[in-house]
Amino acid sequence: MIKNDLFLRALKGETVQRPPVWMMRQAGRYLPDFMKLKEKYDFFTRCRTPELATEITVMPIEQVGTDAAILFSDILVVPQAMDIEVEMKQGVGPWLPNPVNSEKRVEAAIVPDVNETLGYVYDAIKLTKQALNDEVPLIGFAGSPWTIFCYAVQGQGSKNFDKAKAMCFSRPDLAHTLLQKITDTTIAYLKGKIDAGVDALQVFDSWGGMLSPVDYQEFSWQYIQQIVDALKDHIPVIVFGKGCWFALEKMSKSGAAALGVDWTCSPRNARAFTNNSITLQGNFDPSRLLSPPKDITKMVHQMIDEFGKDKYIANLGHGILPNIPVEHAKAFVEAVKSYPDR
Amino acid sequence: MIKNDLFLRALKGETVQRPPVWMMRQAGRYLPDFMKLKEKYDFFTRCRTPELATEITVMPIEQVGTDAAILFSDILVVPQAMDIEVEMKQGVGPWLPNPVNSEKRVEAAIVPDVNETLGYVYDAIKLTKQALNDEVPLIGFAGSPWTIFCYAVQGQGSKNFDKAKAMCFSRPDLAHTLLQKITDTTIAYLKGKIDAGVDALQVFDSWGGMLSPVDYQEFSWQYIQQIVDALKDHIPVIVFGKGCWFALEKMSKSGAAALGVDWTCSPRNARAFTNNSITLQGNFDPSRLLSPPKDITKMVHQMIDEFGKDKYIANLGHGILPNIPVEHAKAFVEAVKSYPDR
Repeated sequence: MIKNDLFLRALKGETVQRPPVWMMRQAGRYLPDFMKLKEKYDFFTRCRTPELATEITVMPIEQVGTDAAILFSDILVVPQAMDIEVEMKQGVGPWLPNPVNSEKRVEAAIVPDVNETLGYVYDAIKLTKQALNDEVPLIGFAGSPWTIFCYAVQGQGSKNFDKAKAMCFSRPDLAHTLLQKITDTTIAYLKGKIDAGVDALQVFDSWGGMLSPVDYQEFSWQYIQQIVDALKDHIPVIVFGKGCWFALEKMSKSGAAALGVDWTCSPRNARAFTNNSITLQGNFDPSRLLSPPKDITKMVHQMIDEFGKDKYIANLGHGILPNIPVEHAKAFVEAVKSYPDR
Repeated sequence: MIKNDLFLRALKGETVQRPPVWMMRQAGRYLPDFMKLKEKYDFFTRCRTPELATEITVMPIEQVGTDAAILFSDILVVPQAMDIEVEMKQGVGPWLPNPVNSEKRVEAAIVPDVNETLGYVYDAIKLTKQALNDEVPLIGFAGSPWTIFCYAVQGQGSKNFDKAKAMCFSRPDLAHTLLQKITDTTIAYLKGKIDAGVDALQVFDSWGGMLSPVDYQEFSWQYIQQIVDALKDHIPVIVFGKGCWFALEKMSKSGAAALGVDWTCSPRNARAFTNNSITLQGNFDPSRLLSPPKDITKMVHQMIDEFGKDKYIANLGHGILPNIPVEHAKAFVEAVKSYPDR
């Protein structure tokens, strides 16, 4: 039994005294202790070494006091497992020396045995669960097939992922073959995470908002729905689609336990688009954590007022920025915790 | 009198046989003749030489057959006129060696005499009007104050313009001082464009969609409203806010003649958000021009069906991409022109 089960109760839609709070990318980036580890170990070493992943995952629970932990890892471990090489390049970010930009390369991508290729993630989950000692739940995650596809085809981050979209629009057959391989791998990967002990799962669709509503259904949503279908009877699944306000209604009927929203979608719009039928998570502008702490407190209380304290998980609308002072991150978390007494 | 006045009639909301069509960034980038000029003259030379700006502006009218011309220029000529240095760096894009990131630099930014600093734009307008010979209307444009502010403070393009947002949220007083200076300059600049002979104006708010609805009102919309207020009795003003679906209702009551929408906002949503009260412009995904021409034709006809042929200007949802084959751009324009006979 998890001692602090606020997060799991909010996912079930139960009435709570205050909403739970966690922050996307909370496991690092802005924490000085994380930055020290970053100097000593490169990115994928941190992902692949269970002791390091555990240490980073637990940090924000101890130092900032969030109500849930999210495993330190990366969405790009999935293409790596599919035999698609991924590096993390200083100043560039994800870098794929051989983008999947041809029929031959789409064919070469494999649906791997996840225990062989991603066993280190499962080891990290088991070790983290021990370290957390049932204090708070542990969230596992994966990128959406579309978001992984974007990096796999483009070969790096991009303003508009034009090469990825070009494959969809000029060779939809190839695009769907690759998307299905990513989906199959992701489902197996997330089932393994459930077996290893995570308490909830989140699918990150970082780039779904670059598609038109029609193209979103074809190239992103249908694959996320496959993932939700495969997992929803086993564990609560949160789907976060950045910029995907236009799909919220359909997403609310998917069987997901909760939906993440970004800060461009007001709480009122998010509740209206989902017919107030589902737990929502979000949506503080990460840049707004640069405001003075007293402003943060006020804005967080207003955000909770607008979403309502039930069926709600307080979070940012996207990942925390590396330049946020720790005191400001703490102010965010404390504001949620003080909500009932304000 | 303009011979092809479809565009101006759509701006007035008149009944038309088919919608007018033009493309954002149509003046160049994807046209081989433009690429030849690009090899010979650097970016700001092309902007500052009326003969070159005219040649580029007229190109898509002759080669692709759009119903309106848009002056070849750049939104960053405004900060240049304000004594903020702007370069166009190969492979980087806009590059400001001295970003406006301090109180001292905000103070140093001037509201210039636009005739002195931007007279070359007015000369280009006069020459272009002669070259167009009243065949089609000429659109002038400016960036929104917020979008100019983003570049001025950040110093270059950015995924999230974190430095620009940081100034807004930590030093709102400074941010508003700079935004007001940009607004004052922009109003004077656009009044000069009217005097020089443009037939309509468009304000591009490329980065408004990165703000929450509340912050959008404070840091972007109130300044755009000042511009609309100053110009609307003299000329039709189109406001295009990329990602600004959440503000469409308010924008529809601003006095603007038309609103641009991007491809993430379906025609049905755009009409609903604006209570079907205003001319809309958009919203074909620029990447969708990579589809085969026969698919483009079908999708364009569907787009017109969904927006309705009246109170509508067919366009892309953002600028045309440089790698679009000219035949595909022509297919887009031809699809609009063939709409009544399909």
